[in-house]
Amino acid sequence: VAHQQLPDSLPPQHNGDTGTSSMNAEPYDVTPPGGTAGEVLARYLRERATAFLRALSLRAENETEADAILRGTARRIGGVLHVYGPLTDPGWAEPLRAELGWLATVLGREPQYAGRLARLLDALRRLSVTVEEQESVTVGGAPPRAPSGGPLELGAARAGALLERRLTLARTRAHSASLQALGSSRFHAVADAIAVLASEVPLAPAAAAPAAGAMAPLAAHAYRRLCEAATALPLHRAGHPYNADAVHASLGADLTTDLQDAPWHQVRVLLRLSRYATEVIRPEDGTADLQRLADAAGPLQRHREAAESASAVAAAARTPRIAPATAYALGVLHADQRHEVEAARFAFSRLWQPAVPGPRGQ
Amino acid sequence: VAHQQLPDSLPPQHNGDTGTSSMNAEPYDVTPPGGTAGEVLARYLRERATAFLRALSLRAENETEADAILRGTARRIGGVLHVYGPLTDPGWAEPLRAELGWLATVLGREPQYAGRLARLLDALRRLSVTVEEQESVTVGGAPPRAPSGGPLELGAARAGALLERRLTLARTRAHSASLQALGSSRFHAVADAIAVLASEVPLAPAAAAPAAGAMAPLAAHAYRRLCEAATALPLHRAGHPYNADAVHASLGADLTTDLQDAPWHQVRVLLRLSRYATEVIRPEDGTADLQRLADAAGPLQRHREAAESASAVAAAARTPRIAPATAYALGVLHADQRHEVEAARFAFSRLWQPAVPGPRGQ
Repeated sequence: VAHQQLPDSLPPQHNGDTGTSSMNAEPYDVTPPGGTAGEVLARYLRERATAFLRALSLRAENETEADAILRGTARRIGGVLHVYGPLTDPGWAEPLRAELGWLATVLGREPQYAGRLARLLDALRRLSVTVEEQESVTVGGAPPRAPSGGPLELGAARAGALLERRLTLARTRAHSASLQALGSSRFHAVADAIAVLASEVPLAPAAAAPAAGAMAPLAAHAYRRLCEAATALPLHRAGHPYNADAVHASLGADLTTDLQDAPWHQVRVLLRLSRYATEVIRPEDGTADLQRLADAAGPLQRHREAAESASAVAAAARTPRIAPATAYALGVLHADQRHEVEAARFAFSRLWQPAVPGPRGQ
Repeated sequence: VAHQQLPDSLPPQHNGDTGTSSMNAEPYDVTPPGGTAGEVLARYLRERATAFLRALSLRAENETEADAILRGTARRIGGVLHVYGPLTDPGWAEPLRAELGWLATVLGREPQYAGRLARLLDALRRLSVTVEEQESVTVGGAPPRAPSGGPLELGAARAGALLERRLTLARTRAHSASLQALGSSRFHAVADAIAVLASEVPLAPAAAAPAAGAMAPLAAHAYRRLCEAATALPLHRAGHPYNADAVHASLGADLTTDLQDAPWHQVRVLLRLSRYATEVIRPEDGTADLQRLADAAGPLQRHREAAESASAVAAAARTPRIAPATAYALGVLHADQRHEVEAARFAFSRLWQPAVPGPRGQ
């Protein structure tokens, strides 16, 4: 296989070690397909870039689906450029990564608000359901009746209406912002860069080395960062159900909760990077590893959604002149979402240790 | 050993079976001390009656301690008269049981309100503690600082003050009620009955049988009722942490939560009866069994306290004209206590199955 994608300036054998290093000597058990690192990386990036461009033309038909693909591919390309940074031209990759991050964030807001509202309205329904309704749902009998109207139940309905108003407004604004972003010259520059990527990836000299030797250490490094961050989490404590850690600061300043949640959010990001890195080097036979990483990502995703939903509830509770019953229902809902945070940590702590093996040879 | 405490009308051998029945033939593994059932039962009741009378004279010195003993002995005597009912004169035991129930309830209210307030103020502190405070507490460093004053933290302080006002008032009223009860002729009649009990227990003819044969089936029956009620609980579901069952109806009518909690409260009462019954027949060598029952009682006690604390919070939230921030804090606190209910169910479900063996031969 020729090094057709590498710049001419590449020294023919820049690193003698990589040619002889076996996979077992690497700390991370990867089996990248044959060929140079540049070929493997370029193949992955080209595929994602093509998907990105296809989604752009799909937007007229199905905006939601197209935006999801744009977000996903933007995150993947950005993540892969980060993990395999030493294999690409940094002067090209770094600014593109920043722009892809901006795009994914802007496009991500609308579905986040939609998901948050759905989650909170679901929780309110769950919190105000009566035993009879529960049973009728369980046996598939009569349709749920209207709440039997205690003052606190009225509060739940009003809290739901307040959240719906606030989050629908936020969602509408996020939709406008993403439309505006997609029409901006900033976005067109990103799309141009992606179009270039679909045909040619600007690689660094290191990409000429065989994929196994050049990519495995980078993927292992990403995995190691994930493991270190996950190990630093209070997993032992989180593994004890009902430890009430996540509700500790429910009535404290937001900052307190944010500080507590941040390391978990960080692990979520590192887990995603490790997933994308694994996708590149194990496109076919890595499904078990990918499945494990995806399984561990689930609770962290729920952790983030619950934490942000709890914050949205606290923000709604600061609305001036709300009725005490509304505030009470928001308080119950806030604590409920903080318990969901705790439940997600519990689930992750159970999943992480046995399911995701540590990197080999460490 | 002579049947000196039995009425003269007792037939000398009223039940031929009990004389030969071995303990192993009984479904419940009990080893009552030798002697007749009447002797064993009378010994236990005399001890408790003496403790009751001693506590009465202790009241002038230490009201709290004396009342705790009065409550405990009243509950024990009442419970034992219930389980071993066939061994005592029903015309005497039944009315006494009812009066002991009244006394234990009246004397129990004040400490319940005190415990509830302490639990809720503790929970409020826990819910509004900041990360820095948490850490300083953990490392035993600086004393906790005052909350840094967000609107929701002000709500926590106001909710605490509201609960303190309400529960202190309830506690003061309960104290007056118990003083009034202890000065009433109704109480003097109970105390007279207990004084009689300290010297002579009115027994039924069945009490002349050997203790092993006559008492074991009654204790086994109490234990069987406990097992049946515990088995009917949703223990499997409760054993899955974060099932969110106990918060389901947090915003629903109180009735809904009460219906959900009632079977657990019932198991708590049956567990207590079984403990008292075991105390009578295994005064020395039954410590392991008693310890197991006491261990299982812990979570059910917490279940009840958390459930009643949650109700007290909901009641406080119905106070007219409270500030939204106060109502919000009460909502968070309510959900927190309902999660404590869920945590207690989880703990009981883990403890019950392995720790308390089923009755033998069933």
